[in-house]
Amino acid sequence: MIARCFHPRLFLTFALAFSAAAGDLSRAEDAPAPRPASTPIADRYRETAERIAAATMSGNDGYRKLEELCTTIGHRLSGSPQLERAIDWAVATMKKDGQENCRREKVMVPHWIRGRESAEMLEPRFEELHILGLGGSVGTPPEGVTAPVLVVHDEEELNALGDGARGKIVLFNKAMPSYNPEHGSGYGTAVKYRTQGASLASAKGGVAALVRSATAASLRSAHTGAMRYREAEKPIPSAAISLEDVELIARLQQLGKPVVVNLKMEGKTLPDAESGNVIGELRGSERPDEVVVIGGHIDSWDVGQGAHDDGGGIVMAMEAINVLRQAKLIPRRTIRVVLWTNEENGLAGGKAYAKDHADELSNHIAAVETDSGVFEPRGYGVSCSDSERETSAVEQMADIMSLFAPESSPTLSSISSSMTAHKGGGGADIGPMKNAGVVLIGHNVEGSRYFDYHHSHADTIDKVDPKAMSQNVAALATVAYILADMPERFGQAAPKP
Amino acid sequence: MIARCFHPRLFLTFALAFSAAAGDLSRAEDAPAPRPASTPIADRYRETAERIAAATMSGNDGYRKLEELCTTIGHRLSGSPQLERAIDWAVATMKKDGQENCRREKVMVPHWIRGRESAEMLEPRFEELHILGLGGSVGTPPEGVTAPVLVVHDEEELNALGDGARGKIVLFNKAMPSYNPEHGSGYGTAVKYRTQGASLASAKGGVAALVRSATAASLRSAHTGAMRYREAEKPIPSAAISLEDVELIARLQQLGKPVVVNLKMEGKTLPDAESGNVIGELRGSERPDEVVVIGGHIDSWDVGQGAHDDGGGIVMAMEAINVLRQAKLIPRRTIRVVLWTNEENGLAGGKAYAKDHADELSNHIAAVETDSGVFEPRGYGVSCSDSERETSAVEQMADIMSLFAPESSPTLSSISSSMTAHKGGGGADIGPMKNAGVVLIGHNVEGSRYFDYHHSHADTIDKVDPKAMSQNVAALATVAYILADMPERFGQAAPKP
Repeated sequence: MIARCFHPRLFLTFALAFSAAAGDLSRAEDAPAPRPASTPIADRYRETAERIAAATMSGNDGYRKLEELCTTIGHRLSGSPQLERAIDWAVATMKKDGQENCRREKVMVPHWIRGRESAEMLEPRFEELHILGLGGSVGTPPEGVTAPVLVVHDEEELNALGDGARGKIVLFNKAMPSYNPEHGSGYGTAVKYRTQGASLASAKGGVAALVRSATAASLRSAHTGAMRYREAEKPIPSAAISLEDVELIARLQQLGKPVVVNLKMEGKTLPDAESGNVIGELRGSERPDEVVVIGGHIDSWDVGQGAHDDGGGIVMAMEAINVLRQAKLIPRRTIRVVLWTNEENGLAGGKAYAKDHADELSNHIAAVETDSGVFEPRGYGVSCSDSERETSAVEQMADIMSLFAPESSPTLSSISSSMTAHKGGGGADIGPMKNAGVVLIGHNVEGSRYFDYHHSHADTIDKVDPKAMSQNVAALATVAYILADMPERFGQAAPKP
Repeated sequence: MIARCFHPRLFLTFALAFSAAAGDLSRAEDAPAPRPASTPIADRYRETAERIAAATMSGNDGYRKLEELCTTIGHRLSGSPQLERAIDWAVATMKKDGQENCRREKVMVPHWIRGRESAEMLEPRFEELHILGLGGSVGTPPEGVTAPVLVVHDEEELNALGDGARGKIVLFNKAMPSYNPEHGSGYGTAVKYRTQGASLASAKGGVAALVRSATAASLRSAHTGAMRYREAEKPIPSAAISLEDVELIARLQQLGKPVVVNLKMEGKTLPDAESGNVIGELRGSERPDEVVVIGGHIDSWDVGQGAHDDGGGIVMAMEAINVLRQAKLIPRRTIRVVLWTNEENGLAGGKAYAKDHADELSNHIAAVETDSGVFEPRGYGVSCSDSERETSAVEQMADIMSLFAPESSPTLSSISSSMTAHKGGGGADIGPMKNAGVVLIGHNVEGSRYFDYHHSHADTIDKVDPKAMSQNVAALATVAYILADMPERFGQAAPKP
């Protein structure tokens, strides 16, 4: 996923305070009479939610699907044959599940390849450094770049050094804070140097940039991710480096021992490649042209298996409509699974979906993105360009979240120890739909460990708890069903009785 | 360190129950009159212990020494130039601290080198596997060994397969249990396959052995260590592999997808190299020929920095006599720091010390080894070939440990939240002194995270807490001082009054 901050506890009390009155739009005549519109959404859908949770928690295919993706295909960066295999796999899997309109929609994506890479500390002693080149970085000459290293904490310290970075490999040592339930992951504060470090260093005459990996936990792990070059600056090679190696080099600098590193990278950008978004649908029973989108991104970085980021997210969406179909719960509107391509280094999938489906976005009730890993679900963040609709949507989501409250049934409360709705949230892939007024919804999960694995060799299936997968499928299926089925349009205040 | 099991809580109550009566051997005439021998040791040394703890906790040079070793020298396997640099550094550091008889004592050590190595999964898809060759392993031909992989949990499963391992790379998937305060680390159950896996596989026609890394926590981390070949079996290459890669291969096998791996290793054993044990002393004021040995091993594996294993241990010993000398606390007997070479893959240092000092071992009051990392100290395990002396030594150690009890002074109780003495314990390097009747003592620390780093790229200085270092120095200095100063010989029951 791309940088995003969210403050999990900020809206806890807020969320539970809401209990929105629902609209009373009339239903087709052959359907059972809906309860009065003033009944909270939760009460109207309690039985259905119970059925979804019971069916999902007693057994579903989510973890098996993710295991298949992670073990037989593995990581899948834009432009790679693995990504195309994953796309074919997702289409075939949804077809086999009986989903409708399963297809790929063509998208051209950037094609960056890593090649081989290494970083060796040559002075004051030899040490093999643990790095991962950043996505989009240029390579080095074949013999590498050999230069003294300058460690700085941030942009201010770099600027204060005037010409001090000229000819140097600049190492940005901005530590990502540990996870904190109040303030979240701290990813935002660290990621700036991953995306901009190369240009900041280049502007000061630096010959390469190394960036402390955006993680708070490390066992000599490098964490890659996207970077961008400013047009004004000469592109220089840039790589993430493990916390341990940063600490080593920073300590040597503090001891007054000059550090010299040889950095070799073969990274380069090839012509754009063909890829695709994946679509599969649970068609609505009454208003099939009205759509609730749920999904994640099918691409990943080119290390690990993209298990949490975002194999888990796409499987949650695929499995959410699968459990609904199996339980014969067909909502009024269509639930469309969209698995975007190229979230990690270009967002071509998200942009293409919004563009290619522009004429039906007015019928998009909501778009839910899940791209924060497979941990216990924590609720939903809601945003909309129309602030009145946003407020109403947050209220309605808080109403829905009350289904999972501790005082709910044992089955429903087993989905999460704390589910909240809050204002603000969404996802990188659904962002391009914002201007069309679509209600954007981010699927939130417990966030303490996500960045330990994120964009690293360790984002693998063994880190995923099958129970958490089921909990997420249940939560997403419930929310998607209700949004697709509730008579009133999600986010529109109920008409006065 | 080498495989060792200890059960930290087993002796908790046992330890606190003791309060041994101390002997009343008379002190030299010019010394202040000792308190009556029936006074518990703790009471006799409370003031001194308070001084040691206060001096150590208010500032000492332990962490700085370890930082210097880890950053400027790094890892130091037997036979490497780094180990020789570390030995020179330790001698010079102790000389600079004003220690006496600082020297190296020549020891010939095995010389294994890793060279380059790689493991690639070729079928059913490509994946670079994360491995570390095991110390002592033979290499592969230059083109590597390419063969199907057979995953087994243990020796029984391998044997049950009859001829099924012939021509295969055998992968031993024996998981190390998570740390548990009752039962310790579980290292013992996992390490068998690291040491014996190659011969077990070879006996069944296997062409190479991969062994699940001996750790319960992993971020795609391989953990190396020593292995041995049985003479009867053909030596085959053997490497440790990360938990994530084991999980991947085991899942593929379970899915019925044959896995083929190419393993390349350049590991080989060269002729023995010259190395040395390091010695430095705080000479005793009255009986300098009677010796209390404290120390750890100066060698490490050839990855990471050997920070916890066992840079921390050697620095604790070096710094223990440094804080005593600085505080002008010179005990009656000599405290001798011994930093053994080649603990990791041969134990040549420990054997050489026992052999070269055989004629003075009868004057060795005790030998304390610290080789479990730098975490909060937890007490001491005591063993002796003379069971009567052992019982008495455990009682006396429990008496000493009461100094650090919660009801003790704030300074003393800040050293640890729980210090116990128990029967059984020691260390690999001091083991060879056992037959000479020396009381062997293992320095114990909190053990929940040690094996996360052990023998891996992640055993680095940033994992060491400076406060824990000070606590360990204080504990070790206190114990060493008391054992070297108490009028009665440690482990000898006090004569009847």
